[in-house]
Amino acid sequence: MKIRFITTGGTIDKIYFDALSQFEVGESVIEHVLKDGLVDFEYDVVALFQKDSLEIDDDDRKLLREYIEKDDATHYVITHGTDTMPETAGALGDLDGQTIVLTGALTPARFRTTDAVFNVGMAVATVQVAKPGVYIAMSGQVFDAGAVRKNRAENRFEATQ
Amino acid sequence: MKIRFITTGGTIDKIYFDALSQFEVGESVIEHVLKDGLVDFEYDVVALFQKDSLEIDDDDRKLLREYIEKDDATHYVITHGTDTMPETAGALGDLDGQTIVLTGALTPARFRTTDAVFNVGMAVATVQVAKPGVYIAMSGQVFDAGAVRKNRAENRFEATQ
Amino acid sequence: MKIRFITTGGTIDKIYFDALSQFEVGESVIEHVLKDGLVDFEYDVVALFQKDSLEIDDDDRKLLREYIEKDDATHYVITHGTDTMPETAGALGDLDGQTIVLTGALTPARFRTTDAVFNVGMAVATVQVAKPGVYIAMSGQVFDAGAVRKNRAENRFEATQ
Amino acid sequence: MKIRFITTGGTIDKIYFDALSQFEVGESVIEHVLKDGLVDFEYDVVALFQKDSLEIDDDDRKLLREYIEKDDATHYVITHGTDTMPETAGALGDLDGQTIVLTGALTPARFRTTDAVFNVGMAVATVQVAKPGVYIAMSGQVFDAGAVRKNRAENRFEATQ
Repeated sequence: MKIRFITTGGTIDKIYFDALSQFEVGESVIEHVLKDGLVDFEYDVVALFQKDSLEIDDDDRKLLREYIEKDDATHYVITHGTDTMPETAGALGDLDGQTIVLTGALTPARFRTTDAVFNVGMAVATVQVAKPGVYIAMSGQVFDAGAVRKNRAENRFEATQ
Repeated sequence: MKIRFITTGGTIDKIYFDALSQFEVGESVIEHVLKDGLVDFEYDVVALFQKDSLEIDDDDRKLLREYIEKDDATHYVITHGTDTMPETAGALGDLDGQTIVLTGALTPARFRTTDAVFNVGMAVATVQVAKPGVYIAMSGQVFDAGAVRKNRAENRFEATQ
Repeated sequence: MKIRFITTGGTIDKIYFDALSQFEVGESVIEHVLKDGLVDFEYDVVALFQKDSLEIDDDDRKLLREYIEKDDATHYVITHGTDTMPETAGALGDLDGQTIVLTGALTPARFRTTDAVFNVGMAVATVQVAKPGVYIAMSGQVFDAGAVRKNRAENRFEATQ
Repeated sequence: MKIRFITTGGTIDKIYFDALSQFEVGESVIEHVLKDGLVDFEYDVVALFQKDSLEIDDDDRKLLREYIEKDDATHYVITHGTDTMPETAGALGDLDGQTIVLTGALTPARFRTTDAVFNVGMAVATVQVAKPGVYIAMSGQVFDAGAVRKNRAENRFEATQ
């Protein structure tokens, strides 16, 4: 089985530029995370866009959806900012035939302490084990698209029902 | 859903004592890994033994099996040394009704670069998503017990068929 | 010999809040850095303020200077934002009798890859070894106050002569 | 000023081989540590040998001493195992004209939590600031060669007087 990773930006890929005192989305860390995970499966990485998820709009979601519809892969892990991850999962929710897992991080992967590696590990397992559908892997849990929200006050994902 | 973690030792928990220039199995790192993963589910941790997996024998496997048989949990993640992880998975393979995922690490979790966090993330997702059975989550893959071996020369896990 | 650490904020102490997508100065990491460094000397930590160094003004520098003048310690390590570290060093430059070393980081100490630990190690050695005076320890070098600038384009400290 | 790093092995460079369940001296991490430290000075690295310091004998110390005597550099940082670091410092103690700082680590540099980076930072500052002589930078302190021992029970370096 081959996994195609699609990166869209978000906190997981945030880097810090001291000269500007800014914190921006940078090159994706996904390949570093997979290398550290000593993974042994076929994969590739498609960098679709690099945005804070608050900046991802309906056009971006349409682009992502059309990309997958026209694409030939069957197993996707999508890294995405957390704030609108449930919305993007919802926009992909009725795709048919693929297994799609969205994940990301509440703390940048470049931090010494981060949830990014754990979350990508969850997503990689879920995409292999779950039946076709759209899922979110965050907060140590695997949620069905359409049944999950980010609780911003608590900084975690939770089921909506 | 509640996950019960059972720790048995192995490289994942290896620590280094400089004074003796030895490298021994120490306290389990599982709770640190879960904390970094920002997980939000109910769990507990049972430290059953602390052994290199080459030292785990049939009595230990019997003890582990009986522990689970008499126990009331339904979802288990077992951290275990890698060298005999497939043997232990095989010894649990016909348990009925529980979902059991074994994982560990090829490099100690206390290392700056380690596969431990990724692997535990995989195991936590698998135990939630997979149907009851016994699995191994290593090398970025989820294997069925009885269909996996450690390839020591290549330092990775692979399907036997 | 006792070392008194004074923290003033800066990139070294930057933390990231996902909920707000902001990156702010947080609790000082100095004690974590010293603990990881397995140091064995007497010290204490005074948190004087928590500011980006671009926000540190002449009143703040006066406050810092007066704090040290009235204080009873003889060896100081000051953690400080990098953008105006040379200015603050200059404002302390004619203090007499103390050994004062300013340091900080170009990348937050909470990052997996950071110069913070190296820099604090340099500062701790310099404050013990150098004769009384004011120094900056950054970019792998120890500079005299008044003879150093931050080269923002190159993101490093360099001698002015 | 140019710094010449001489590596001799020791815990700082220990790596872990899972296949063999061994923990051995590997390639030196010094260049990674300097890169993370964002250092900006001229340096090179000479890998003289790779030994546990308990295996370093008088012939090795003679080799190291003769290497430095015949060499043209003036500032040296030597990474070394901790158990016999004071003996090696003593064997170099009457060299004349160079500034030599020995350092190492009580925990491997490849660990997530290690004293290696802090210690190398200390050594780099000391070799720039101290007057010619032989020093040990460990446990957050800078010691004169001949006045320091490793307290194995406490796992730290301390002055002998």
